[in-house]
Amino acid sequence: MFTHCVRDVLSGRLSQSKTPQCCMTLALQHTRRYSSSAQSEDLDPLRALLELCANRYYISPGQTTSELFQRGRSCSYGPLGMELKKNLLEQWWHSVTRSKSQVFGINTLSSRKDTATGGLRIVESEHVKQILEQQELSREQLVQKVQMLLQRSSPVRTDLLQGALEEFVPSLELVNRKLPFGLAETGLCFQPSDGSVCSAEVTQTSLVWFCSPRTSSQWLDHWTRQRLKWWRKFALSPSDFSSSDVPEEELEAAASRGVRIVYSFPWGQEPLEMLWSRGNTELLHTHKGAHSTLQCRNGRKTVPHVVSLTGNMDRGVMAFLSNSLLQLKNVDGKQKLQQRQVLKLHPVLAPVKVALDVDRGATMEMRQVCEGLLQEFMEAEISAWPGYLDTQATSVEQLTAKYDEMGVLFTAIISENTLESGLLQVRSRDTTIKETMHISELKNFVSRYISAADNV
Amino acid sequence: MFTHCVRDVLSGRLSQSKTPQCCMTLALQHTRRYSSSAQSEDLDPLRALLELCANRYYISPGQTTSELFQRGRSCSYGPLGMELKKNLLEQWWHSVTRSKSQVFGINTLSSRKDTATGGLRIVESEHVKQILEQQELSREQLVQKVQMLLQRSSPVRTDLLQGALEEFVPSLELVNRKLPFGLAETGLCFQPSDGSVCSAEVTQTSLVWFCSPRTSSQWLDHWTRQRLKWWRKFALSPSDFSSSDVPEEELEAAASRGVRIVYSFPWGQEPLEMLWSRGNTELLHTHKGAHSTLQCRNGRKTVPHVVSLTGNMDRGVMAFLSNSLLQLKNVDGKQKLQQRQVLKLHPVLAPVKVALDVDRGATMEMRQVCEGLLQEFMEAEISAWPGYLDTQATSVEQLTAKYDEMGVLFTAIISENTLESGLLQVRSRDTTIKETMHISELKNFVSRYISAADNV
Repeated sequence: MFTHCVRDVLSGRLSQSKTPQCCMTLALQHTRRYSSSAQSEDLDPLRALLELCANRYYISPGQTTSELFQRGRSCSYGPLGMELKKNLLEQWWHSVTRSKSQVFGINTLSSRKDTATGGLRIVESEHVKQILEQQELSREQLVQKVQMLLQRSSPVRTDLLQGALEEFVPSLELVNRKLPFGLAETGLCFQPSDGSVCSAEVTQTSLVWFCSPRTSSQWLDHWTRQRLKWWRKFALSPSDFSSSDVPEEELEAAASRGVRIVYSFPWGQEPLEMLWSRGNTELLHTHKGAHSTLQCRNGRKTVPHVVSLTGNMDRGVMAFLSNSLLQLKNVDGKQKLQQRQVLKLHPVLAPVKVALDVDRGATMEMRQVCEGLLQEFMEAEISAWPGYLDTQATSVEQLTAKYDEMGVLFTAIISENTLESGLLQVRSRDTTIKETMHISELKNFVSRYISAADNV
Repeated sequence: MFTHCVRDVLSGRLSQSKTPQCCMTLALQHTRRYSSSAQSEDLDPLRALLELCANRYYISPGQTTSELFQRGRSCSYGPLGMELKKNLLEQWWHSVTRSKSQVFGINTLSSRKDTATGGLRIVESEHVKQILEQQELSREQLVQKVQMLLQRSSPVRTDLLQGALEEFVPSLELVNRKLPFGLAETGLCFQPSDGSVCSAEVTQTSLVWFCSPRTSSQWLDHWTRQRLKWWRKFALSPSDFSSSDVPEEELEAAASRGVRIVYSFPWGQEPLEMLWSRGNTELLHTHKGAHSTLQCRNGRKTVPHVVSLTGNMDRGVMAFLSNSLLQLKNVDGKQKLQQRQVLKLHPVLAPVKVALDVDRGATMEMRQVCEGLLQEFMEAEISAWPGYLDTQATSVEQLTAKYDEMGVLFTAIISENTLESGLLQVRSRDTTIKETMHISELKNFVSRYISAADNV
């Protein structure tokens, strides 16, 4: 279900003035986010989002990419999409591995030798072709040979659970057989065909939490609270993220309880993360029922229960992009209604923290100042955009519009004046305020802003 | 070829004393690293390395894992192996994306729809089985149906080059058609069968550098220098990393020059990274010869040449583990010869920077102090090992031996004394010196040590 959401946001009009002092006239404007009842004046919200993402280097242009992206599957990400996804995965990792001292990271294989059959498998197509081309084989021999080849091929994983269950025994020594503990992993998983695409990949996050049977339900609640809080932390509109119990009839075979964390896209709800309380049948099955090797030392000797958390970070990227795209309407100096789009991604997630650009009439010296600043930001691990490399003449207004659509937090404009006085102009995406500051202050200013947003 | 390497290293004997002052007697001992002429007193170097890695949470135990690891392919990594690989990938990313302002990150698909046939492909095995079970199909119909299914299946990538070549056109706008620029990516690639394993995955790093035709050879030299310097930066024995030109008869079809960066394992040389100057045939082929869309604005309108850098980070992990494993012999207090193993991984790469442990007779209060310290390290993003969770009684000597094998930089021992005076004992892996410091100094001490090592 779509959460109908009309909000007032602070937006402002762009100033034509280039005087150094703060020179923004703020105007509280009535603005609305994409809604399912979007009228003709608005673009179709999905189309608008996909267009912006393709134009602003989040995803590669093209129909296939858009389709995959929209379905919450991995697609070809451009530089900004890649950085956003990286930031999101990093935040997930920190949040999960730092919340408890007993969470350990692992890195398992995406394809493995397996005696079971079925599922998605990687085959060497030349080998199949060779069999098919053997004219001397009878129909039965042919069938048999292809079956054998299929059996010998490596299945690819559809989730990260199995890898963690296998790592349970080697990990027991780490924690001296004491519960609870968890194994965390992020990685590529493959999903079976859903008609239009042959098979598709998804970047998943996984925490597999091993605990005593009597605490598993409490842990499921604990992790649900933690995870929902995490998703909402980075949202512009937190209420679009919600959790709900999985109805009994939809529970997975092994599971006694399940929780779904969903995002309300303009076109309906989609799950971002699934939490399951899964008992210990799968753990026992993985280790061939060897009770004694699985037992832990918590009071009585028990085979632990498993709580699994599985997130889809490709859909996560899509959710935060959708959540942070604002359509703002403001009246310009000539009382003309203007529409602009701003991608208000959370400062921690925003792929570009600061864009470095030059005023019209850029000289070699101005570019060198930018180059120096870029180096400074790189060393501080703050991602900066080398806008000054683009030598096409663009007005400051066009630049601002572009950077707002890219979700860039701050735009620093180096001008002739910077060379003389060391002063530059910095515009904030969120307040639209332009400030003048000394070039030596810029890095700390941006850095402090991001830290402050992270600690909220 | 193996670089024969006998070195003197500074090693010391463990002190039994627990007095707060620095109490290490240093002894310069003749030590030797694994050598191809290893005598009976030494373990087989490969076996010793694999055993240590499995025992100390770098890789999962088991024959398959060891085999994959040894071949420089992805395997199941334990918590320490995962962290080492993550650190290595992070360092690669920083080094490549920060060395030039014109390097952009991308994230492309590992499987894609493709009209070509051949190679490794992901198939839904149920679909193949369904065809094979259709009794009414003639032999010819069967062959045709399997062929069609194969054609519709997604091929998986064997390297990251193709993805970057496809992203070339959308990236041109970013740089305003100006050369040179590069596209960086890290990710999973799949390699065809080599007999024993069906197919295998490798974590690759890739920089695809687009430059003007006349500068491509210079850029190949530039990147070779950069990359070799990078590998050597983290090495204990830098001369084990070397580069050599690929002989003309071994050049890839499209390439005019190639360079190999290799590591000399005790069992022979293996390539870590390949650099190719590959002209523009593949770029033209990817974009169906559309010269006009590929042209850049450098002097005359040219289709850029491609220099590719492809690294195998699974083998990189293996190389640094092999490079940093030292077998030390020292004489203990009773003049008895003792052998110990130390994994002297570079401070930046070491998966655990500090282990937090408790002295014998640990109390609840001491564990709480550890918990607080762990939290402090987590917040500072310094990876710490919760050794205090292990409640088995172990001597300080056994702990030290274990942490040396894990490659832990510092071991902090919290004792009864810490509760009274706030002082704890910190032992350095590299100097084996024990120092007493106040608990409030520990984090900054470790943090300064790592930064200093990073800036060398």
